[in-house]
Amino acid sequence: MAVWYGVDIGGTSVKTALVDEHGKLLATRAFETNSHPQPEWMVEEIRLSLQTLAQEAGIDVHEVKAVGVGVPGFLDLDTGVVDQAVNLHWVNVPLVEMLSNALNIPVALDNDANVAALGEAWAGAGAGYEAVVCVTIGTGVGGGIILNGAIHHGVSGMGGEIGHMVVMRDHGPQCNCGLHGCLETVASATAMVREGRSAQAAGLLPADVEIRGAKDIFDLADAGHEAAKQVIADAADWLGYGLSIIGIMLNPDAFVIGGGVSKAEEHFLQPVREAFERMSLKRVREAVTIRAAALSNDAGVIGAARLAQQRADQRSDLSV
Amino acid sequence: MAVWYGVDIGGTSVKTALVDEHGKLLATRAFETNSHPQPEWMVEEIRLSLQTLAQEAGIDVHEVKAVGVGVPGFLDLDTGVVDQAVNLHWVNVPLVEMLSNALNIPVALDNDANVAALGEAWAGAGAGYEAVVCVTIGTGVGGGIILNGAIHHGVSGMGGEIGHMVVMRDHGPQCNCGLHGCLETVASATAMVREGRSAQAAGLLPADVEIRGAKDIFDLADAGHEAAKQVIADAADWLGYGLSIIGIMLNPDAFVIGGGVSKAEEHFLQPVREAFERMSLKRVREAVTIRAAALSNDAGVIGAARLAQQRADQRSDLSV
Repeated sequence: MAVWYGVDIGGTSVKTALVDEHGKLLATRAFETNSHPQPEWMVEEIRLSLQTLAQEAGIDVHEVKAVGVGVPGFLDLDTGVVDQAVNLHWVNVPLVEMLSNALNIPVALDNDANVAALGEAWAGAGAGYEAVVCVTIGTGVGGGIILNGAIHHGVSGMGGEIGHMVVMRDHGPQCNCGLHGCLETVASATAMVREGRSAQAAGLLPADVEIRGAKDIFDLADAGHEAAKQVIADAADWLGYGLSIIGIMLNPDAFVIGGGVSKAEEHFLQPVREAFERMSLKRVREAVTIRAAALSNDAGVIGAARLAQQRADQRSDLSV
Repeated sequence: MAVWYGVDIGGTSVKTALVDEHGKLLATRAFETNSHPQPEWMVEEIRLSLQTLAQEAGIDVHEVKAVGVGVPGFLDLDTGVVDQAVNLHWVNVPLVEMLSNALNIPVALDNDANVAALGEAWAGAGAGYEAVVCVTIGTGVGGGIILNGAIHHGVSGMGGEIGHMVVMRDHGPQCNCGLHGCLETVASATAMVREGRSAQAAGLLPADVEIRGAKDIFDLADAGHEAAKQVIADAADWLGYGLSIIGIMLNPDAFVIGGGVSKAEEHFLQPVREAFERMSLKRVREAVTIRAAALSNDAGVIGAARLAQQRADQRSDLSV
């Protein structure tokens, strides 16, 4: 049995897992990101985590063939250096070299959104599809494009950065990236909170509810508040529009929608599908399914393990 | 020397060429599409054309390894059948089988826009780039995506149909495809003519000029008419916007713009670049060049020859 080590470094926690060759989790762990402010400490913790995971899974650590790591930030994939990871306060961290020295196995690195997309495409809601586009709705809108099982990076690692597709061309809200009207300014949980508060300020939603996240909007919608339903419908409509643009460009067979809101089938996913279909040609819309992500928070470690596996396969191809 | 046969079937004329392994034209011919209303006749003419081309190029016809064909229409690439080609009045034509029987060499088929894009990416303005997106501005807006030298088809052959990306989401002009606000309704030569005539009706352009094509608008702009300059600037702005969307999704290193208008560097290409840069992130815009197509009407036959070469290479891979 081949076993792969997946590491998903997030702003809040670092998840680690051993994964078999079919994408099944054999053992998982997690530790807080903040408790390891230095990259060296985090690498050491990742090394220790592997020992513990191997013990838990009842396997010899030498059976672990390679490690894959997802990092939220700008990466230099050629050199394996994390150029910048704002949430981790990292600048120019040679992560691949450090992990390679610590673990003595091949290391594969990629952006966290790409790695999660790879996980869903391999062993989640996108399994069995040829061209999978993953969109995760959260504080922002993340994305990843998986073509024939491989991440599409683009030439400078920006491929699949769907959240920064300008969908609202005129008078769009300012985005953190500096542009205006990006998909994440109108379809993220943050956008829903902003619009919900605005409806609240206009007296359209009860003043005594504190709107902290998208869940509060969904709760208000469930309680029958039309303004909350409208906020969700608008976000879903923008996302459906965004998918229609991706659809005619890439002509995928699966869109996988992640993030908490994706579980709201009736309030969210269904209107996303309707908007997508309204703005898509028949041959595009008939070829594609729009579905909720299946792996939840495990998508990252599973995708990282898949990345490790792909890297190891490449190496053995080369050695033939 | 390996020689490939490229055939570019258009609504007006059919172009044929022999092409060497570097994309150089060895001999070219063309005949009228209308003179061959039956697919069988056209296949026969394509067979005769090969004989003539070989003679002209001074090579033995047996040196021609494979043929590639570009067809304007919906194709079933698995079976090699032209499902529908409206401009040719073809329905369910088993073109690959027919050509294969007539020529006795491997036949590769693809959509005309994809084939032209492959030509530019191989031996034209996109040569040497890794991810090339071609956009051709004409009656409509055609497109093709070439990733690592291969056409990106998508799962139902709609990949790269950039003209039908909805860019004007609200109140967009009706498109022939049934949608509203597609890129080709605002950035094609047809759109420029429509807007030019509208400016004319409003008394903003001289009434005695007949506006028949984009060239007439460019002539009016060159003569100093502000309304004509504005029509071109608007179309360029929409195209630049469309490219910004493609840019953040695919993160290509080259956009190749074809069609007559692409030769207007100052009036058209420069404002396209400015709009693109205004709506793109630094890492995306710094990685990509926007340039005019280089092969003009030869892109189709050269791309078709490249397709033939790729097909033959695949076959020899399989036979190893």
